[in-house]
Formats: sequence, C-alpha cells, structure tokens
Amino acid sequence: MDRVQLSDNLDMSRIVHGHWRLADWDMSKQEILELVERCIELGITTFDHADIYGDYKCESLFGEVLSLKPELRANIELVTKCGIKLISKNRPEHKVKYYDTSKEHIIKSVENSLRNFNTDYIDLLLIHRPDPFMDADEVAEAFNQLKCQGKVLNFGVSNFKAHQFDLLNSRLDFPLVTNQIELSVLALENFDDGTLDYCQEHRISPMAWSPMAGGRVFTSEEKQAIRVRETLEKIKSEVNAKSISQVMYAWLLSHPAEIIPIVGSGKIKRIESAVEAMEIELTREQWFEILQSSMGHEVA
Amino acid sequence: MDRVQLSDNLDMSRIVHGHWRLADWDMSKQEILELVERCIELGITTFDHADIYGDYKCESLFGEVLSLKPELRANIELVTKCGIKLISKNRPEHKVKYYDTSKEHIIKSVENSLRNFNTDYIDLLLIHRPDPFMDADEVAEAFNQLKCQGKVLNFGVSNFKAHQFDLLNSRLDFPLVTNQIELSVLALENFDDGTLDYCQEHRISPMAWSPMAGGRVFTSEEKQAIRVRETLEKIKSEVNAKSISQVMYAWLLSHPAEIIPIVGSGKIKRIESAVEAMEIELTREQWFEILQSSMGHEVA
Amino acid sequence: MDRVQLSDNLDMSRIVHGHWRLADWDMSKQEILELVERCIELGITTFDHADIYGDYKCESLFGEVLSLKPELRANIELVTKCGIKLISKNRPEHKVKYYDTSKEHIIKSVENSLRNFNTDYIDLLLIHRPDPFMDADEVAEAFNQLKCQGKVLNFGVSNFKAHQFDLLNSRLDFPLVTNQIELSVLALENFDDGTLDYCQEHRISPMAWSPMAGGRVFTSEEKQAIRVRETLEKIKSEVNAKSISQVMYAWLLSHPAEIIPIVGSGKIKRIESAVEAMEIELTREQWFEILQSSMGHEVA
Repeated sequence: MDRVQLSDNLDMSRIVHGHWRLADWDMSKQEILELVERCIELGITTFDHADIYGDYKCESLFGEVLSLKPELRANIELVTKCGIKLISKNRPEHKVKYYDTSKEHIIKSVENSLRNFNTDYIDLLLIHRPDPFMDADEVAEAFNQLKCQGKVLNFGVSNFKAHQFDLLNSRLDFPLVTNQIELSVLALENFDDGTLDYCQEHRISPMAWSPMAGGRVFTSEEKQAIRVRETLEKIKSEVNAKSISQVMYAWLLSHPAEIIPIVGSGKIKRIESAVEAMEIELTREQWFEILQSSMGHEVA
Repeated sequence: MDRVQLSDNLDMSRIVHGHWRLADWDMSKQEILELVERCIELGITTFDHADIYGDYKCESLFGEVLSLKPELRANIELVTKCGIKLISKNRPEHKVKYYDTSKEHIIKSVENSLRNFNTDYIDLLLIHRPDPFMDADEVAEAFNQLKCQGKVLNFGVSNFKAHQFDLLNSRLDFPLVTNQIELSVLALENFDDGTLDYCQEHRISPMAWSPMAGGRVFTSEEKQAIRVRETLEKIKSEVNAKSISQVMYAWLLSHPAEIIPIVGSGKIKRIESAVEAMEIELTREQWFEILQSSMGHEVA
Repeated sequence: MDRVQLSDNLDMSRIVHGHWRLADWDMSKQEILELVERCIELGITTFDHADIYGDYKCESLFGEVLSLKPELRANIELVTKCGIKLISKNRPEHKVKYYDTSKEHIIKSVENSLRNFNTDYIDLLLIHRPDPFMDADEVAEAFNQLKCQGKVLNFGVSNFKAHQFDLLNSRLDFPLVTNQIELSVLALENFDDGTLDYCQEHRISPMAWSPMAGGRVFTSEEKQAIRVRETLEKIKSEVNAKSISQVMYAWLLSHPAEIIPIVGSGKIKRIESAVEAMEIELTREQWFEILQSSMGHEVA
C-alpha cells in the first residue's frame, strides 16, 4: 500500500477507511475489530470520522472497538472533523442546524472526540464545512492551542474552495495538510472550479469523499448515471477489472493530484476490491472516455 | 462608537452615514447640519458620497451644509467615489452611461468633488465600479498624483471582486483600504463568491451598502423577503430589539470581517436605532437562522 | 506595426496571422508564399498554428511554403500548440477525442511540428486547452527539456483560467508568456470571469482567437448579434472606419490589456483592413456602447 506524506508527522495510507456509516453496518464490536485488523493487513491504516457521524455515535463506537485492542492505536491514523451542529436527540440544545467554528466549540469538540476514541491525540482534525461566519483568527487560536497541547497533530479542512483555504491558511503558523472534497465520476465540480487545481498547485493531496458517488452509478436511471455505467462496463472489460467500482477507484487514483479515496464500506470484499484497483492502469483515452460520459459531451 | 483603523491616517466610525439620497430628504441646509451634528454626537463621523449621487448634486449640497459650520470638516471623514458617468441633464455631454477610470477623469472628478465639498482634501476616494476597460497603471498614476498633492489621503474600491482588487492593488505603492460592497440579509453574493473571504484574509474592513436591502425586507411579498421578515421578527423578540432593522444591522455588525454598514436614512431615529444595534448580541444559531431564511434551505 | 515584447527572446507583431484554415483557403503554395510575404511587408511577422489545424495538415503545408523561400524563417515567429488529440483519418489510433499533456506526447508533438515546418525551433509553444488530467510537473519536465535543446524558445497556454495558469506557472523556472483566449464583441466571458484581469495584473499580453466572433456579427439573426451589428455600424460612421470588422479590431486593440488579435483570413484585403484598424481611436463612450450592445443592457 502506498503512503502519502501530508506533513512531517503524518503520512496516510493511500486508501482510507471511512466510518461515516459505522453505526449502520449492524456489526458487533468484535466484528468491527476484525474488519479494522483486516484493513491494517491490507495497509489501510487511516480511518476517517467526524463528530457528527452516526448522529454523534460513530466516534464512541470506534473508541469501544479500539478498547478491545488498545495497541492498535499506535498503528493507525485517526481523522475526525468538527464545525457542524446537527439537530439531534443527542444534542437537544441544538434548535437549528448550523456551523460553529468558534474557538470554544472546536476545543470542546476535540475534547469530546478524544474521550470518544479513548485516545489522547487526533492525527488530523478537519473543519467540516466552510463557515460563512468563520473568524479565521479564532480558528487559528484553537488550532494553536490544540497543537501545543499535543491533542491534535495536524489540521485540514473539508469542502473548502480555494479562497476559503487561503483565508484560513493565512492565519496559521503551520500549513493545512489536506482538503477533503467530493470527487467521483458523477461529482465533477471540484475538477472544474479550480479546487483540484489549487490542491495540485500547493501539493496538497485531497481526500475524496463519496468516491463511488453514493451508489448512484450502480442503480440510478438518470441519463448521466446510465451513460457513465455503460462506459465503466466497457472499460472494466478492457482493463480486466472485477467491477465497475474498481474502474471508478482507478479513475481517481490515476489522477496526478494524488487523490486519497475514502472507502466507506463495512464489507471486507469491497475494501479489498478498492485496494486491488490500485493496480489498474487506465490510459488517458480511457480516463477521458469516463469523464466525457459524465459530462455528456466531448471535451472542447 | 467603535472606530475602524483603515490605514495610518484613516479611521472611520464603525457606522457610516450615507448621503446617497441626501437631495431627496427634503431638508433645509440647517436641518441637514443639525442631523450631521447629531450623528457626530453619536460618534458617526464618516459620511459616504459619490460624485453621481443625487444626479451629481449631493456633494455640493453637503458642501453648502459644511459651509454653515466650517470647523466640522476637521472632525469628519469624507468618502466619495468616481468612475461612473451618468446620463444626466447635469452632464449633457454624456450620451450613454459608461465607466471612466482614465487618469484625466479621476483627477477631474476629484477636483470637482473638492470644489463641491468646499474642502481641500478627501479622506477616502473609491473607484465606484469595476471598469472592464480599466488600465490599472493609469489609475495608479492618478492615485499617486492625488496622494502626493494631498488632495486624497486614502484610496479604495467599490463592488470589486477579488481578482479586480488584486489587479489594481498590484500597481499601487500603498494598499487599497476598503471595498464597499452590497451586504445584507437579502444580498448574499459577496458572502458566497469569495469577496468577503478575501477581505477577511487581507484584513480589509468592507463597507456595506444597502444594509437594509433597500427596504425590501419590510414590504416585499417575494417568498425570500417573507421568510426573512418572519425570522427577523422572531429573533427581534428573542434579543429584545426594537425593530427588525436593528436585527439586520446586528447581523452585519457581528460578522468577523468587521463590516462597516452605511446607514442611508435622513431620520435621526433610524440612525440612533442603528447605533443601538451595536449592543445587540446574536448567537451563532440566530445568525444562521437568518442566513438560512434568506437561502431558503439549511446549510449543507 | 507595433511589436509586443513577450520575453527576452520573443517579440510578436501586434497583429498575428492565424493559419487555422490555411488548408481551406484553396491557395497554391506560391499564393500562400505571396500572402505571407505581403503580411511581412505589413509588419505581421507572427504566424499562429496548432498541430491539429486542418486535420493535422496545416503545419506541413506551411512548412512546404517556407521551403520555397527558406530565408523567411529568420524573419518570422512561429507559434504552435499541442495537447489535443482529434479523431482523424490522419491519426487512426485515436478512438475518442481527448487531451494529452504527458511529457511523451508534448515532446513527440513538438518533434513532429519541427518536421512539418522544416525548422529547428518553435518560437512559442502553447498547451491548447486546460487538461483536467494535467500533471504540471510532467509538463514542466517536457518544457525544460525542449527549452534546453533549443527546440522551443518560449511557452504559453491557451484557453486557461487564472487558477490553471497559476498551477502550471508554479512549476516552471521561466514564466508562461501568453494565454491565447477567445475575445471578441460577442465573447465576453474572459472579460467577466477574471481571466483578462489576471493577464493585465501579471502583464501577460493575451492573444485573441476568433476576434471577429467567427463571422456571426455579420450574418447572425440572433438578437445579440443584431444589436452589436447595429452599434458597430453606427460607430463605423462616427470614426470613419471602412467596415465593422475594423471597429471590432479597434475594440480589442484599444483595450489596456494589450490584446494581440489573430487575423484568420487568407484574403490580403482583410488583413490590410485589420492593420488599418490600429489607427482607429475609439472613445471610452464608444467602447462601452459596443460592450453594452453585446450585454443587452447598461452597465450597473
């Protein structure tokens, strides 16, 4: 498994396991532990969380899994996020959904994540969404404090556009190490609007959420999904892939921006399949065939 | 009244009095003088003009007011603008509306503003609109000359996007000190497109025109205006504001970009009300409730 | 004829002759030679090509013309492009249209262009379109090698937005010298979206393709074209131009970004007419009248 160096003290596995739906997989803690250990055998050592995943429950569930085998902590990288406040029975004080990137909330959220995970450090903390009310100086204060205390080793963002990244980065003594963005054969916005170009320019490897487009490629009857599915099937045959999922992973993995896909499945077969996709080589012609099937027209 | 430091030789009152409609207020010069003196008592010392306001008549009207009490000049900051040429009976040579940011026009416009105001310096001159025919070197020449002569102490722009700001700034030996943009609960464009993020990144306090959305919040039957009005009414009660106007001012004043709202009313009660709004504290939750009522949907 | 300095070792004629349709002009090589010599007499010494023009045939056709009088080479600047792969009987290996900015393809394409032109150097090589699969480091390697070998003296891009320009520029030891973009009275996108502002900021003279809007101004019955045509006719009379084409050229030539229009005609009268347009002076008012006729409304 390739590793991606994000900073002096952080490298990630090229494929990340995403725990967005961890609480929905109907697995016992022992089963999750076995899944995680199998991931590590495959070289997948980075696990992606957020405070809000599973209605604020995924972090603590994973923390309980780690408690079954505490020595795992030293062999994995924990990514989590903060900044969104959900309406939830687990947060009865929230009356509306909103963002909170105040120093107080960031620190409180991290303290809570540390408790949930039963750990004393987070490898990478991301601001979950660009906050139109963000005070960049205040975020920087929170980050500085958490870094000095050793509670968070590295910082990044998610779903930021270039100008939002610039704003926050301008206030930090250390650079943001990643931008976790939506990237898939059906989600081309970040390819078009400069976000991915910005990442490549600044040598920031982006993490890709929903790299399988939330399953729409497999089942949707929208025209775009049908076109893409047919093209993926054709190329699957050409490159001897086992599934169109593998072609979708290969499409992201082959991009020069060094995209880090987040595999969000609880099924070990699907995770293994994603790892195998690292071996698939697409020609430029094939890469553009897929792109064009999604755009619905030729490039200019 | 808070003051905002824009440069070594310019600080503004946090709330600015806008003279866009000065000629429409049906006030005698003596009445305007009393209004201005009352503003100064409230701490509002900055007055916003443009060459074209009142069909080219507001500057000279205010100049006549100042002549009634010349010692006022030293206690106020005069902001004016140039760069738009209106079709007007007062400018019979204009056949179409267009922009002119030539060195000749900028200098001529400032000379005219100085005469209108009966003053020998402008505290802050803004280019009124981004000019697609702008020669940034020529604007810089005009600015340099006006600054050397002491006729204009500081320079800024209005309605510029980040790339237009970058272009003009790149030619100047001194930084542009503000960008006067439309910002209100009904005007979210500059929140979305990076303009406000750019201001925060570069620590440029933006001035906000039409902070009351031109009155549409009070009377419009558009869906957006109705939603916003209802939300403002709700929050007015929660924070014990006297009016939804105060909530709208508080919504801008609480933003971390240090927005400077321009109050464009000739009624002293409304101006006092805006000043009182500086005391209102909105929670983040309330700030986002207002935002979301304007967007028509939750944040992502 | 004015010259535009693009780098230490490249200056271009202010008007460039475009050979996009060279193969469609039904001219003998001798006739093309005479046309080129007449261009040079007029001061037009820069000729714009691309590998793909004329279905991959224009470069070699022009190379044969140059062979009739090899001493011409030292008196002209050759511009060509690479990066697009067309479906073509001349490239039977291409199954879909796609972009290729790999080091291998760039070098191979340049070697081919050198053979086609019967020359040992290209004055300026452009990447024809922004490639969403571009590896900027790899492009830089190709450029470095070609520059060291003396095969290409200068590099630029075409149809790039600011962020794409920034990305590629960030990897080069020498700056990109131009961005060839669509600019005309009917193509305002690059005026609006920051591309032209970026060029002016970085003092990069842009080349303008389709400066006559592909002929639509002359014949189209679309509302926009009709409005623009009427306005151009009016201004033609005011400035004593010989044709609305001259007014369109003057509209680009007068812009402060120092736009270099590419005249794509095989008719010497039309080329002479473009050169004459350099003498036409438009007022700002006229410039905006044309702009506003294209936008369909007044400026704000």
